[in-house]
Amino acid sequence: MTFPSDSAQLLDATVDALAAVRETGPLVHCITNDVVVNFTANALLAVGAAPAMVDVPGEAGMFAGIAGGLLVNLGTPHGEQREAIEEAARSAAEAGTPWVLDPVAIGALPIRTELAGRLREIGPTIVRGNASEVLALAGAGAGGRGVDALDDVDAAAQVAAELAGSTGGIVAVSGPVDLITDGTRVVRVANGDPLLTKMTGGGCALGAVMAAFAATGDDRLATTAAAVAVYTVAAEIAAEQASGPGSFAVAFLDALSSVGADDLRQRAALS
Amino acid sequence: MTFPSDSAQLLDATVDALAAVRETGPLVHCITNDVVVNFTANALLAVGAAPAMVDVPGEAGMFAGIAGGLLVNLGTPHGEQREAIEEAARSAAEAGTPWVLDPVAIGALPIRTELAGRLREIGPTIVRGNASEVLALAGAGAGGRGVDALDDVDAAAQVAAELAGSTGGIVAVSGPVDLITDGTRVVRVANGDPLLTKMTGGGCALGAVMAAFAATGDDRLATTAAAVAVYTVAAEIAAEQASGPGSFAVAFLDALSSVGADDLRQRAALS
Amino acid sequence: MTFPSDSAQLLDATVDALAAVRETGPLVHCITNDVVVNFTANALLAVGAAPAMVDVPGEAGMFAGIAGGLLVNLGTPHGEQREAIEEAARSAAEAGTPWVLDPVAIGALPIRTELAGRLREIGPTIVRGNASEVLALAGAGAGGRGVDALDDVDAAAQVAAELAGSTGGIVAVSGPVDLITDGTRVVRVANGDPLLTKMTGGGCALGAVMAAFAATGDDRLATTAAAVAVYTVAAEIAAEQASGPGSFAVAFLDALSSVGADDLRQRAALS
Repeated sequence: MTFPSDSAQLLDATVDALAAVRETGPLVHCITNDVVVNFTANALLAVGAAPAMVDVPGEAGMFAGIAGGLLVNLGTPHGEQREAIEEAARSAAEAGTPWVLDPVAIGALPIRTELAGRLREIGPTIVRGNASEVLALAGAGAGGRGVDALDDVDAAAQVAAELAGSTGGIVAVSGPVDLITDGTRVVRVANGDPLLTKMTGGGCALGAVMAAFAATGDDRLATTAAAVAVYTVAAEIAAEQASGPGSFAVAFLDALSSVGADDLRQRAALS
Repeated sequence: MTFPSDSAQLLDATVDALAAVRETGPLVHCITNDVVVNFTANALLAVGAAPAMVDVPGEAGMFAGIAGGLLVNLGTPHGEQREAIEEAARSAAEAGTPWVLDPVAIGALPIRTELAGRLREIGPTIVRGNASEVLALAGAGAGGRGVDALDDVDAAAQVAAELAGSTGGIVAVSGPVDLITDGTRVVRVANGDPLLTKMTGGGCALGAVMAAFAATGDDRLATTAAAVAVYTVAAEIAAEQASGPGSFAVAFLDALSSVGADDLRQRAALS
Repeated sequence: MTFPSDSAQLLDATVDALAAVRETGPLVHCITNDVVVNFTANALLAVGAAPAMVDVPGEAGMFAGIAGGLLVNLGTPHGEQREAIEEAARSAAEAGTPWVLDPVAIGALPIRTELAGRLREIGPTIVRGNASEVLALAGAGAGGRGVDALDDVDAAAQVAAELAGSTGGIVAVSGPVDLITDGTRVVRVANGDPLLTKMTGGGCALGAVMAAFAATGDDRLATTAAAVAVYTVAAEIAAEQASGPGSFAVAFLDALSSVGADDLRQRAALS
């Protein structure tokens, strides 16, 4: 059901997508959780995008219609934010704004699980999560314990492809090797560093970066894989300079702002 | 309509104001957005003030009455926070607590624009924003795209002076050269570094620092210019040590806590 | 009323508790304030625990029942969060999940003071605060000015013991020398660095770390003292590498992740 991807072509697309983000500075509308909202804004700025955190009902809908991309992250879904999320997702779908759904900890927790089910029906351009979240969104999950992955990426591959088929979008499953699929093709990215999981927001901010990259072109599989590759290559560069999770987070933002075509060509493990 | 300021006198006032902040540790009440609230608290601590983030209705009003200064930032104006903001602004006005209004992204977004209009009527001691926000608050704006400035500082100078005249307070317009006016006099501060715009909260935390400096004396034009000078000189020092936006944010907090009279006398470009 | 503790035994218990946190990675449910939520999650990850910030009513109660420990921090108690807090505290009490109450700025501010009174009746496993907060919770306080301590730790010792007697739990009073009591025994920890008070969240994140350590064993006095010792020894290590509050925060997370038995045996001043 899956076809081998051309690594060289994916790498070229990644280099081009990064250049496009830096040239155009896409406006990324984020509705995300309280824990990672600062880091997410800083990650977007570092990579070259323009973050705007607009999560008030009455503003979120109109803003999703003019933004380059939208991130919806369910990490701390307060009542007012839930209302803003539905408003923004519907507006994005109508306006053609690409939007990312990160269904944090669904399966384990009821309020967000119910919301995620409704959002799935709107058709997210990209779903990003760990294996347990993707399984839960597909209705096949065993629940989760928050932002940690309890299920295996490979175990989720088939379910991810089916989910992508049903949403008509991309599904990205994070793990030691990230998997991105449009339901037919599969791309794997074998970069990153364990320190990404020792700082909060390592996964959540990637969702925002995917929205930034989605704003640059219509080949969603390629731009999503590009976002993952840029992000995880930056993590590798940062890890080489880090003494622990605190210095890693700092070095990671530096690396996101300086990572270039040469780094990608030397390091990106796209297949 | 504007008179040249005496640079030497402004510099002395800046040095004195910084010393006063460090000696008295003014209690700064902040009602600000989710994205920058941590960085804002850390910036206040670094410069020598005592932050307190009190944004619950029923607490915000009484606290604004006893604080040394108040910041109201409209970046993520949730319903409960909007209520707390009006309560706090009215209490500050009654108690004579100096208060700063940062009308983030008004013009572009309706809920906060309407709120900003009401707050303007209460008479903020200081308005701080980029050119597009100041123009929007004055009712002359072209809207904005969030925390980025799309309009020019100089283009906003006349409108800023008129706005200051109508509020009876100070208006500070951020940009490569910051402009501070009380409606009659104008001070310009030509310090800072582009990295301040590559980390989230660079402008928002300055509003809180203005509130801290306002707590130290009644010459609001001088204390506001002092806050801008201290903040942007610290940014220059930090930029010299930074490898990117992550390390810049860290070095900036260090510099805010260590910047001294000598640094100001060597670097501050007040006119 | 108090008995001298055996320092060597306390030190062994501290080393064991840290090892247990790292081996078991306890799931720590946090309901905390907007200012420190990111730093708190990162501190938990650094020390080896798994943070989950679940503060939505309808989710908080069930999650407190399955978590290893719960932190309730009253720093920014919005209406929805107050509801989640009571739900979580009652669920934790029923399920036997150890839970920490950090009554930030009670005494000075009415909404949280009233809530803290109700939470006290549920019987927090651990109360953590500065002297003024502990005095206020005990009903004997003089109010506070936020997260700064205005009262002396020693002055609070007797009140802390009485409070512990009434809650049936532990009371930990932070200060230059931290005091931990179960109402009968008293442990003092004379570690730390003033830089811990120059970054926001220095006290708040400690409450979360206490919840993580409480998940590892039933001797709450020992695990709470262990949490304080590990945390404040890490602060000492970090301070030696820091140039100010910004670099301190970064080094502190690194130190929390690397602090080991040897560091504790050389530095921890438990008595």
